[in-house]
Amino acid sequence: MTKIVIIGGVAGGASAAARARRLSEDAEIIMFERGPFVSFANCGLPYHIGGDIQERSQLLLQTPESFLARFNVDVRVMNEVVAINRHQKTVTVKNLLDGSDYQQEYDFLLLSPGAAPVVPPIPGVDNPLTHSLRNIPDMDKIIQTIKMNNVEHATVVGGGFIGLEMMEAFHQLGIKTTLLELSDQVMTPVDREMAGFAHEEIRNHGVDLRLGTALSSVEYIPQSSIANQDAGESSEHQHLNGHLILTLSDSSQLKTDILIMAIGVRPETTLAEQAGLQIGALGGIYTNEHMQTSDPSIYAVGDAVEEQDFVTGAQTLVPLAGPANRQGRMAADNMLGRNESYQGTQGTAICKIFDLAVASTGKNEKQLKRDNITYEKVYVHTASHASYYPGAETVSFKMLFDPLTGKILGAQAVGKDGVDKRIDVMAVAQRAGMTVEQLQHLELTYAPPYGSAKDVINQAAFVANNMVKGDATAIHFDEIDNLTDDQLLLDVRNPAERENGNHLANDVNISVDQLRQRIDELPKDKEIVIYCQVGLRGNVAYRQLVNNGFKAKNLIGGLRTYLYAKA
Amino acid sequence: MTKIVIIGGVAGGASAAARARRLSEDAEIIMFERGPFVSFANCGLPYHIGGDIQERSQLLLQTPESFLARFNVDVRVMNEVVAINRHQKTVTVKNLLDGSDYQQEYDFLLLSPGAAPVVPPIPGVDNPLTHSLRNIPDMDKIIQTIKMNNVEHATVVGGGFIGLEMMEAFHQLGIKTTLLELSDQVMTPVDREMAGFAHEEIRNHGVDLRLGTALSSVEYIPQSSIANQDAGESSEHQHLNGHLILTLSDSSQLKTDILIMAIGVRPETTLAEQAGLQIGALGGIYTNEHMQTSDPSIYAVGDAVEEQDFVTGAQTLVPLAGPANRQGRMAADNMLGRNESYQGTQGTAICKIFDLAVASTGKNEKQLKRDNITYEKVYVHTASHASYYPGAETVSFKMLFDPLTGKILGAQAVGKDGVDKRIDVMAVAQRAGMTVEQLQHLELTYAPPYGSAKDVINQAAFVANNMVKGDATAIHFDEIDNLTDDQLLLDVRNPAERENGNHLANDVNISVDQLRQRIDELPKDKEIVIYCQVGLRGNVAYRQLVNNGFKAKNLIGGLRTYLYAKA
Repeated sequence: MTKIVIIGGVAGGASAAARARRLSEDAEIIMFERGPFVSFANCGLPYHIGGDIQERSQLLLQTPESFLARFNVDVRVMNEVVAINRHQKTVTVKNLLDGSDYQQEYDFLLLSPGAAPVVPPIPGVDNPLTHSLRNIPDMDKIIQTIKMNNVEHATVVGGGFIGLEMMEAFHQLGIKTTLLELSDQVMTPVDREMAGFAHEEIRNHGVDLRLGTALSSVEYIPQSSIANQDAGESSEHQHLNGHLILTLSDSSQLKTDILIMAIGVRPETTLAEQAGLQIGALGGIYTNEHMQTSDPSIYAVGDAVEEQDFVTGAQTLVPLAGPANRQGRMAADNMLGRNESYQGTQGTAICKIFDLAVASTGKNEKQLKRDNITYEKVYVHTASHASYYPGAETVSFKMLFDPLTGKILGAQAVGKDGVDKRIDVMAVAQRAGMTVEQLQHLELTYAPPYGSAKDVINQAAFVANNMVKGDATAIHFDEIDNLTDDQLLLDVRNPAERENGNHLANDVNISVDQLRQRIDELPKDKEIVIYCQVGLRGNVAYRQLVNNGFKAKNLIGGLRTYLYAKA
Repeated sequence: MTKIVIIGGVAGGASAAARARRLSEDAEIIMFERGPFVSFANCGLPYHIGGDIQERSQLLLQTPESFLARFNVDVRVMNEVVAINRHQKTVTVKNLLDGSDYQQEYDFLLLSPGAAPVVPPIPGVDNPLTHSLRNIPDMDKIIQTIKMNNVEHATVVGGGFIGLEMMEAFHQLGIKTTLLELSDQVMTPVDREMAGFAHEEIRNHGVDLRLGTALSSVEYIPQSSIANQDAGESSEHQHLNGHLILTLSDSSQLKTDILIMAIGVRPETTLAEQAGLQIGALGGIYTNEHMQTSDPSIYAVGDAVEEQDFVTGAQTLVPLAGPANRQGRMAADNMLGRNESYQGTQGTAICKIFDLAVASTGKNEKQLKRDNITYEKVYVHTASHASYYPGAETVSFKMLFDPLTGKILGAQAVGKDGVDKRIDVMAVAQRAGMTVEQLQHLELTYAPPYGSAKDVINQAAFVANNMVKGDATAIHFDEIDNLTDDQLLLDVRNPAERENGNHLANDVNISVDQLRQRIDELPKDKEIVIYCQVGLRGNVAYRQLVNNGFKAKNLIGGLRTYLYAKA
């Protein structure tokens, strides 16, 4: 009878337990969870705070009782594993309810401890109004603070997934919100120019977004509250509240009623380190492709582990639910004698930011530059479905590829409709090893309510192939501000589109539809740098000019990419 | 100077003209269109009739003038090519406005004539109230009939894309509608049991759906209308209207005010045949992978041609906009000296049926059976995104695969959310040659508003792999009505789910969560046929039983697949 001990009862741990039981009826499966809940919907926490998910009970997917009934798993909540004794193949467990300790034997141990919020040692940050959000008790505390402290202003530090979701939750509750982000963009999985769409969306909702701004110190101004029993208040209302004075890196100050620290997470490796398991260079638990740690009897999955990057083959940390769940299933397979290999992580991710979806897969340009990987890129802005059918929204799409092999390196998309679909398509294409040549031939669903006969992806592939084949010479948004005297900037949009100063400085305007008649107005000794709104008419003009002997380049993604890069 | 003559100004023809100009500034490009419009949104026609697309002008994507200005293409509408003179490399053109004939030379000719609605010779079908829908004039006539004939009841013959879209358009206009379909299902790209969801959706909207019913004859009962000029009616109101008495294959009769014939389309091959071009076995113009006909100077694209089926390699007819557009682009490339190959058609398709999307890619089960291709299949019914986040809808998903190699043969999906996305994922995976083993590892976008940590596709892949590896033994919906005395039907749902007779006859009920305690109630000498609502709990029960030495099978897709197969 195989004894399987699992540390951590969410995502990876819960998946592993269920799979293990399906494979073996007689395995003994014990799952330890130091918190009071197992298998809760951690991705749903911000949405319950904001009110989208109304019932707290909806977040509790399984209970110890349901796990026992369905999977015969011995779930021990409020039981914390405090040591792994590898030589004895036991773990030391502390029962947090009665304080007692005991030993538990294992044949195989699975570590699924997750990752913990990083809270830097900022002076004053340890106070009753400052929270991070990782689990149900954290969520309950935030809700309690909102309720009890009459929160009128909230501050979120960190523009990642949780920071953005908490920002939206506060906004939805009618609370004025400031979002502080140290870098020059939110949502680091996408590149700066794609994040511009998110910045605009955030500011359009009245959120005080401060990029390049850090939190320097926190001052807690307490104010004690005495329950007004005449007004029906219970003793619950008798507590400390008050407000915070935040000092920011630009020396400005900000008064706020609640502070959420969401700058990132760090793998939980304490137990693994104490047990002498190998820790990777990035600080996660080392695992091989079977999700096995340096001790063959111990497996590890989820946010705590380092896994292989699908694109580069390097070690990476990707704290996301999808990989955690699949790794858990696979670890169970391998513990019970199967031979499953994890195939690497692309880091496919998506975040809802008000009405916008921001998503990506594979590597972004920042990472490619850092790793010295040769790449080319295209931008396409086109309708999520046939533009003549109601409800179409612009999908802004970026694709990164190897200019020699055409291999897909990464993709990013932003928009109000159809963003998840396009990134899913790219995630599959990348995983399958497809090239931008092959992407041209993709045959995706088309009817006016759902797509276009030439989908976003087909169009991006056409542009990329034009570049690979030399049919298009690209100029990118970040080169436009540095043109020389040997270059002439040509706007090929209609004059009406240029009204209210809506064009680049020092340009010339000839509409694409008049270009043949007016082509002689252009100099042959200069390079014509063509732009239009999104790059499509620019390409038509580009082809006309080069086929007429001009030197030319086309601004890929057009004015739209250029402008949002500054947003 | 290359002379390119294009016959047909929609989809493939228009794509080819624009691409040809981008490749060559000095090619002479002439496009003939016998109708009054080029490059109109033919997929949008039913939506303008139904009112979703309010402005008729939105359907007119390009005009001869705009094509000339932007692409220097000589567009000649109301000019019909009546003969191809291959030896002279000319076409004979009839100017439909003045009746004159003339010759036009070509170096390369592109045939993009499309497909024509099939209207069988049903007695009486040729009358002023019977229409088919292919182009703007057809649409205008239908709208005119609706307006002038006080249409209270409409009949649509044919449950394909256009028939279904016209049914919805009539319904949206408040017109009672009957849909006649000869076969036992609408939407033939999907299999019968998947079409059941569409049948329910159609009936739930009050449409009189009659499957297995043909139109036998039509009687036109005219009634002349005199314009009431005192009431402000123009001479437009002076026309024949009336109603139709339809006699159906079951001898019943039906009074209706407008009749739409939408049983299918047939490639337009008249010109090609007259010119002695090779016609394929299916009746379409033969083309090689370069979209070249049997005459190397003549290319053909779109609904009129036979192309290669991506899965089987056989010739196929796929009258859809996506392939037409991509083929047009490719034909232009090849006419101008490139060497592009069409990569075959999967037939990826989608149709909106009220709130439901019905979509598919690759081969369906009917085709696989007909072609004697070995296959296995899975059904999954699961939430379009995290079920605890508002707005999740069930995606009902079917996947067909080769049980030996795991290669994907086809996929079908039905639901109110996320259907297009899942079929797009499958279309890419299939085109990339992925196996169901590889599908398990797909890393798709996940956040609660968009997906699940284990997506529909991952789940279907898990089930398929369980079958391939022998971890699951499937029974399918169509075997359930033929169980023998050696089999015992076991419902593992909760008793509450069985209320109001909502279970199969002659079954036994033990909830999956009680199965371990009550396992001795089951016989070891019979095969236990397990079912639940969608197949998930059934799998948990199945594993438990076989791991305890029982013989068992699990109903894939559960009761939901079984019930909708009969809808």
